[in-house]
Amino acid sequence: MVTRGSPALSCPGPVSVSPGTETTPPSDSAPSPKGDKLNELLGWPQTLEWREMGRWVLFEEKLEVDAGRWSAPHVPTLALPSLQKLRSLLAEGLVLLDCPAQNLLELVEQVTRVESLSPELRGQLQALLLQRPQHHTQTTGSRPCWGPAQSRKAAHNKEAPMQQQCQSPLRQKLPPGAEAGAVLAGELGFLAQPLAAFVRLRDPVWLGPLTEVPLPSRFFCLLLGPPMLGKGYHELGRAAAVLLSDPHFQWSVRRASNLHDLLTALDAFLEEVTVLPPGRWDPTARIPPPRCLPSRHKRTQAEDRHRNGPLAPSPELQRTGRLFGGLVQDVRRKASWYPSDFSDALHPQCVSAVLYIYLATVTNAITFGGLLGDATDGAQGVLESLLGTAVAGAAFCLMAGQPLTVLSSTGPVLVFERLLFAFCRDYSLDYLPFRLWVGIWVAVFCLALVATEASVLVRYFTRFTEEGFCALISLIFIYDAVGKMLNLAHAYPIQRPGSLAYGCLCQFPGPGGNESQWTRPRPQSRDDLLSVDLGLVNASLLPPHECVQQGGYPRGPGCHTVPDIAFFSLLLFLTSFLFAIALKHMKTSRFFPSVVRKVLSDFSSILAILLGCGLDALLGLAMPKLMVPREFKPTLPGRGWLVPPFGANPWWLSVAAALPALLLSILIFMDQQITAVILNRVEYRLRKGAGFHLDLFCVALLMLLTSVLGLPWYVSATVLSLAHMDSLRRESRACAPGEPHSFLGIREQRLTGLAVFTLTGVSIFLAPVLKFIPMPVLYGIFLYMGVAALSSIQFMKRVQLMLMPAKHQPDLLLLRHVPLSRVHLFTAIQLACLGLLWIIKSTPAAIIFPLMLLGLVGVRKALEWVFSPQELLWLDELMPEEERNVPEKGLEPGHSFSGSDSEDSELMYQPKAPEINISVN
Amino acid sequence: MVTRGSPALSCPGPVSVSPGTETTPPSDSAPSPKGDKLNELLGWPQTLEWREMGRWVLFEEKLEVDAGRWSAPHVPTLALPSLQKLRSLLAEGLVLLDCPAQNLLELVEQVTRVESLSPELRGQLQALLLQRPQHHTQTTGSRPCWGPAQSRKAAHNKEAPMQQQCQSPLRQKLPPGAEAGAVLAGELGFLAQPLAAFVRLRDPVWLGPLTEVPLPSRFFCLLLGPPMLGKGYHELGRAAAVLLSDPHFQWSVRRASNLHDLLTALDAFLEEVTVLPPGRWDPTARIPPPRCLPSRHKRTQAEDRHRNGPLAPSPELQRTGRLFGGLVQDVRRKASWYPSDFSDALHPQCVSAVLYIYLATVTNAITFGGLLGDATDGAQGVLESLLGTAVAGAAFCLMAGQPLTVLSSTGPVLVFERLLFAFCRDYSLDYLPFRLWVGIWVAVFCLALVATEASVLVRYFTRFTEEGFCALISLIFIYDAVGKMLNLAHAYPIQRPGSLAYGCLCQFPGPGGNESQWTRPRPQSRDDLLSVDLGLVNASLLPPHECVQQGGYPRGPGCHTVPDIAFFSLLLFLTSFLFAIALKHMKTSRFFPSVVRKVLSDFSSILAILLGCGLDALLGLAMPKLMVPREFKPTLPGRGWLVPPFGANPWWLSVAAALPALLLSILIFMDQQITAVILNRVEYRLRKGAGFHLDLFCVALLMLLTSVLGLPWYVSATVLSLAHMDSLRRESRACAPGEPHSFLGIREQRLTGLAVFTLTGVSIFLAPVLKFIPMPVLYGIFLYMGVAALSSIQFMKRVQLMLMPAKHQPDLLLLRHVPLSRVHLFTAIQLACLGLLWIIKSTPAAIIFPLMLLGLVGVRKALEWVFSPQELLWLDELMPEEERNVPEKGLEPGHSFSGSDSEDSELMYQPKAPEINISVN
Repeated sequence: MVTRGSPALSCPGPVSVSPGTETTPPSDSAPSPKGDKLNELLGWPQTLEWREMGRWVLFEEKLEVDAGRWSAPHVPTLALPSLQKLRSLLAEGLVLLDCPAQNLLELVEQVTRVESLSPELRGQLQALLLQRPQHHTQTTGSRPCWGPAQSRKAAHNKEAPMQQQCQSPLRQKLPPGAEAGAVLAGELGFLAQPLAAFVRLRDPVWLGPLTEVPLPSRFFCLLLGPPMLGKGYHELGRAAAVLLSDPHFQWSVRRASNLHDLLTALDAFLEEVTVLPPGRWDPTARIPPPRCLPSRHKRTQAEDRHRNGPLAPSPELQRTGRLFGGLVQDVRRKASWYPSDFSDALHPQCVSAVLYIYLATVTNAITFGGLLGDATDGAQGVLESLLGTAVAGAAFCLMAGQPLTVLSSTGPVLVFERLLFAFCRDYSLDYLPFRLWVGIWVAVFCLALVATEASVLVRYFTRFTEEGFCALISLIFIYDAVGKMLNLAHAYPIQRPGSLAYGCLCQFPGPGGNESQWTRPRPQSRDDLLSVDLGLVNASLLPPHECVQQGGYPRGPGCHTVPDIAFFSLLLFLTSFLFAIALKHMKTSRFFPSVVRKVLSDFSSILAILLGCGLDALLGLAMPKLMVPREFKPTLPGRGWLVPPFGANPWWLSVAAALPALLLSILIFMDQQITAVILNRVEYRLRKGAGFHLDLFCVALLMLLTSVLGLPWYVSATVLSLAHMDSLRRESRACAPGEPHSFLGIREQRLTGLAVFTLTGVSIFLAPVLKFIPMPVLYGIFLYMGVAALSSIQFMKRVQLMLMPAKHQPDLLLLRHVPLSRVHLFTAIQLACLGLLWIIKSTPAAIIFPLMLLGLVGVRKALEWVFSPQELLWLDELMPEEERNVPEKGLEPGHSFSGSDSEDSELMYQPKAPEINISVN
Repeated sequence: MVTRGSPALSCPGPVSVSPGTETTPPSDSAPSPKGDKLNELLGWPQTLEWREMGRWVLFEEKLEVDAGRWSAPHVPTLALPSLQKLRSLLAEGLVLLDCPAQNLLELVEQVTRVESLSPELRGQLQALLLQRPQHHTQTTGSRPCWGPAQSRKAAHNKEAPMQQQCQSPLRQKLPPGAEAGAVLAGELGFLAQPLAAFVRLRDPVWLGPLTEVPLPSRFFCLLLGPPMLGKGYHELGRAAAVLLSDPHFQWSVRRASNLHDLLTALDAFLEEVTVLPPGRWDPTARIPPPRCLPSRHKRTQAEDRHRNGPLAPSPELQRTGRLFGGLVQDVRRKASWYPSDFSDALHPQCVSAVLYIYLATVTNAITFGGLLGDATDGAQGVLESLLGTAVAGAAFCLMAGQPLTVLSSTGPVLVFERLLFAFCRDYSLDYLPFRLWVGIWVAVFCLALVATEASVLVRYFTRFTEEGFCALISLIFIYDAVGKMLNLAHAYPIQRPGSLAYGCLCQFPGPGGNESQWTRPRPQSRDDLLSVDLGLVNASLLPPHECVQQGGYPRGPGCHTVPDIAFFSLLLFLTSFLFAIALKHMKTSRFFPSVVRKVLSDFSSILAILLGCGLDALLGLAMPKLMVPREFKPTLPGRGWLVPPFGANPWWLSVAAALPALLLSILIFMDQQITAVILNRVEYRLRKGAGFHLDLFCVALLMLLTSVLGLPWYVSATVLSLAHMDSLRRESRACAPGEPHSFLGIREQRLTGLAVFTLTGVSIFLAPVLKFIPMPVLYGIFLYMGVAALSSIQFMKRVQLMLMPAKHQPDLLLLRHVPLSRVHLFTAIQLACLGLLWIIKSTPAAIIFPLMLLGLVGVRKALEWVFSPQELLWLDELMPEEERNVPEKGLEPGHSFSGSDSEDSELMYQPKAPEINISVN
């Protein structure tokens, strides 16, 4: 319980061990019934011996004597009388500050130099104090760190422990420089009055076998006395240990110059304790460590809130006023980080991140390729999708402002492309050349947006806009997955008892056969279709493919149906979906070591795909499989890699293309920048800053490139990018048992993305492996991605609130500050906007869909008339203008104080722990 | 915060309301920055007004001003300085004990009669105190309980509130006789020094609009003063309110005769508080109410443990030493309860219990009937099962010692019956007559067991035996469900691309047809089976059933296969299983009001069956459905209802039948009594006692009856009986927000069982409805029942521990007292026993299976050599002999003290809240 530095350090000071050790009276001396009880309670032999009973690093761990193990770390709870008794004992006892003792022997001599002790008693006591305590590690039979002989030697030799290589798990956790402290407490029958000693050593000294872990100690506390009622000395020892593990108390006592200072420090500690009234809480109940540790400085906290506040004007989003000024600034800022963008990637975590994101990207590219092929009637396909993803992604990773971004085809752009193709088909235009001109114009418009620093407008994209957009994309994922699945059921119909698809014959052109007879059906009363008269001898009931093998012809309506496929597809679909979800949740399960759980959780979608493929291979049904290109050439037959500038189109279409390009530009801008805003949120603690202008610039250039090559268009993909960041998060190592991990930031670098897209490019040649993946499995994974993304946005949490009775709602901070009816109103408005977007997306008016996305910003602006700025601050964020209108009190210390009880509520809308949990795998 | 009685009552005293009310200084007087901050923080207008800020019934509810609602109830946390400051204020302030005030006006006059106040200030203060406080209910716009005029009148009239019918939700929760208390705290700029008053009224008085709920108040506390730093008076007010809501403090203060007594009571409160050190716990975090409230009397708790201990010798299990002595005692004891066994059933809960258990019983009877028909080659069937269940169950409910028991065919007995039938078939014996004699002998043996009071031996059935038995039954359920499902897949094979079952023709005996040609296949090279030559003209590809309708004959291997059935069965199976589990878990979800959740959860299996039937009806496939008898006659054709005593068997077989009967008797005894032991566990708090002897007597008589009629044999079914009890549990109404419901007992009566079995009898005529249930749905429900039963036994929790790293294990009490390796050893031994039982059950030696069950008791006895009594006490229970050997300390207060921290750990093996969660639905 001694700190390694001042309590102001970031990894909070009290990283140390303090065995609260106890002794009991020998059975012959003073066998009072209470002492006897205590002895039995702790269940150790009646001989006089020290035993380690607990340790306090940050939280308390008790030794469970019977079970022979440390308890789970928990918040220590004390009884107020123990603290008060401790105070009076210390006030009357021996206090040695800056004691020069160099080892345990000297310390014991110093401590026992008390007038009240007779020389005989003193000798007895000294022998007792030098006795080797029994540590838990020894009790359970693991290799002891030192034998009795060593221990005696070690007590005289300060250097010994450092050479010992006996590393306990706790030692490995503690940071270098940690110190220990020791509290010895117990009942001694031969003492007439309590003996208390508090020692601050001049230099931290290794106190021999007193502490479990070989660490030097600075503080030493001895609490002995005649037997007293109940668990007296045990509780006193605990109180002393808790006190010594408090960083503020340590800090004060290190500077104390006399007893008075010590008592003042204790009183200051008492001033700050939290009191639970009796009867509402069992004092023996163990409170698990809180998810985030409270900051003890309210001042710091208030500043934090200001710093973390979504409104903090970031330098990237300030208008320079010069043409391309933002871009130049972005490039300048990013250039300084460029070397570190590669050196920072040298960490094993990056390897697993690459594998993880690669699989997600390839799955995504293949599926979007399939969708695109469907939408454009084969003008583009899986090959273009893979190639384009690889080229565009890699280029973006090398050049962009935010290299953690993963480029991908996105739902909104796909919708637009489908509409564009339909337009070209309706007016008999040459699609790819027209698309080329649209791309050129979009690039021009985007460059104009970069030049005018339009990206600073992203400050108007509040959570409201983001959530509307995210929810729409997630819904598109879910809708497409289910829709594709239903299409499969259509393609492989279920054979109901009354369905026509029944029966199949194999006909052989046998010697007496007369083939023409087959083609002349003799119509019967009502079964024209079915009752194909059989006038042939050479026919059999061979299955169709065997029939063909043997030279026959399968005939009949049942030949083209494959039974069982529909239901098996559904089974595979559900299995991979549920399996992926279950594996994802493994992370928080109690089973298996955390490494195993992390692997299972991180690779949940890949494992689900493998399971699906395994099931499919096991049954060997003729399932529809993933189609992958076998040759490296454009999907559209007969075209080269370069799209001709005009093709069959008239020249003026290249100008007219500016009109759809305008709409597409809005869409690209929204899609790109909303994702960028989400990725660059303050709570992700990115050090290298964003690059909104540079990112848009890159997107514009890639737009040009992909249009020329006839590849799909790419913008930032929210879900994939967040998964990328999630796989690169850095967390603090816990320094103390029970201490929560804290989020430190993201490994910002360019290498993982580059590797991912290089692998994606290579995947074009992976056809022999990829062709084993059944389509329903992929659809299942897509459903999972959509559901995961949808459930991670806070909008959905508010939708869920609508279904909960107020009594059962979680204790969200939001609900403490905004009336429930207002929360529901806000959610309802969001739902209505989402519904409207969905309807527009589904109607012929879908082409104006980008405008409607922009409309979300307008709706949000209009909400300022409905909700107070205070409410909007909790429900959403504030827009730039509102910022000025917030009543002062909203951001005052008083407010941030009441906001500081965020620790026990689910972190919602507040200095939230980064929740990159829109995980896609 | 005033009690309705002494704190010794079972529903703990402090059921009351205490609005901690505050006031703020007017904006013109003393606008110190601190007061200003407080003012803004709470966000109310700058006018001087009282506002209800919190209430404390058992837990604290804060008013969330911005959100306009009460917070969730939580454990109140105080700062120690507030309590100390409160103590000093009270010590210096005005304390009025037995104040004769009859209304608020008089009270205010009494309170303001302080010397330090000038007459002008006094008037100002009185006006202020009489001002109507703003309650939350008024704030949010609901109908106010009283207008300003009324309030003034009410302040003078004690009777008024009782006539008001304005019932708040809180009022309805509070028990009659509850009292309120009021704390008024706040900063007053015009006061020069703090003004504190503590009033105990002689009689509880309704203090006008001061309290939210119209309740009389006994205590009144006023804490006013000049503005001070921070949230001073708010925290002081909270401290006073928490103090006043403490039953012990109330109790002391009710008896206090002077200031000294009051301060002593406060000090006693402080002695008992729990202290959380700073920095480990955010003082503003809200601790949710614990699942069980701590008892504040350790003495009571120790007694409790003794009383609840599994070893308490119950009077039912003491040997009388007389022939049939136990039976006579049982009858005598039960007779006195008999009238109440019917009157206690008059509660709506019983209706839902009947519906719930009826459906479970019928499902069970039908499925076991099917299994039985399968096992005995049709000698018995669903009709016998339904009839027997109804007759035996109803008779048992009327006569038995424990009428909550549900009789049913059970797995072990079914296994035995299958073996008996195989034996008869192998030796060509007449089954039913032989079975009759076995039944007669079993009845004789059982009566002998009753006569010799053998049931007292159930004290040797510890948790070890119960768990082994339960786990076996659950595994049989799971195994059977999955096995039946796989059988379905066999009956309806999946059509793989290469499978033979392909193709089907419809042949018409047409004019030119030559039927004999069909039967003469011309063997070909390798396709003899398949290549049925078609030499006919009149054939078509009609589906088989249409073919038959049109007078044709379906021919070919594909005619008997129905595609898609296998996978759809699997889908239905999984759907009903998962849906039942999901609905069961609805109970603990946050969604929907608790009534809806309870209904969904209680009827989960029925809803799952309905969903399955709906899905099936939607698709209309030819699924295998439940077969139900259409006529009321024995399943075996040609037999009457009475089984002939000899049939074709030789006479001496009636004597030889004693041998299998001996084994069956052991089985019946074990099966019946283990269930009885489980049902009569102390933690279910049955008032009317058990009737082990009487139950066995009834089973013996019914054995005789069912053997004579050729019906299945019945014993108590654990899972169904526990579900029955679960549906009849009585819980306390929560008297205070946040207070956990406590379990009061079970509605012990005979009517629900009687109704269930009457309905079961009527179900024999339900064939037209039941025939719509697809079999896979029933299998899914059986899987669910098995899984639910298996996961509810603590043995499984220990098996799960084996898969968890020690660090992540839940903080079970067991693990605090027994080393992990010993826990694992115990679990491993149980697993080995279970494995052995399973193997024996599956081999030809299965007939000695009852002996092996008995062997479990022996294994448990042998474990005494491996484990210490202390360990066995935690891992299992103690057997009668061991009881004497437990070291004293095991049951000493010291021990029970450390056992009392059960509240925060999952209740395992300890005075556990009844966990009838082996729910079957």
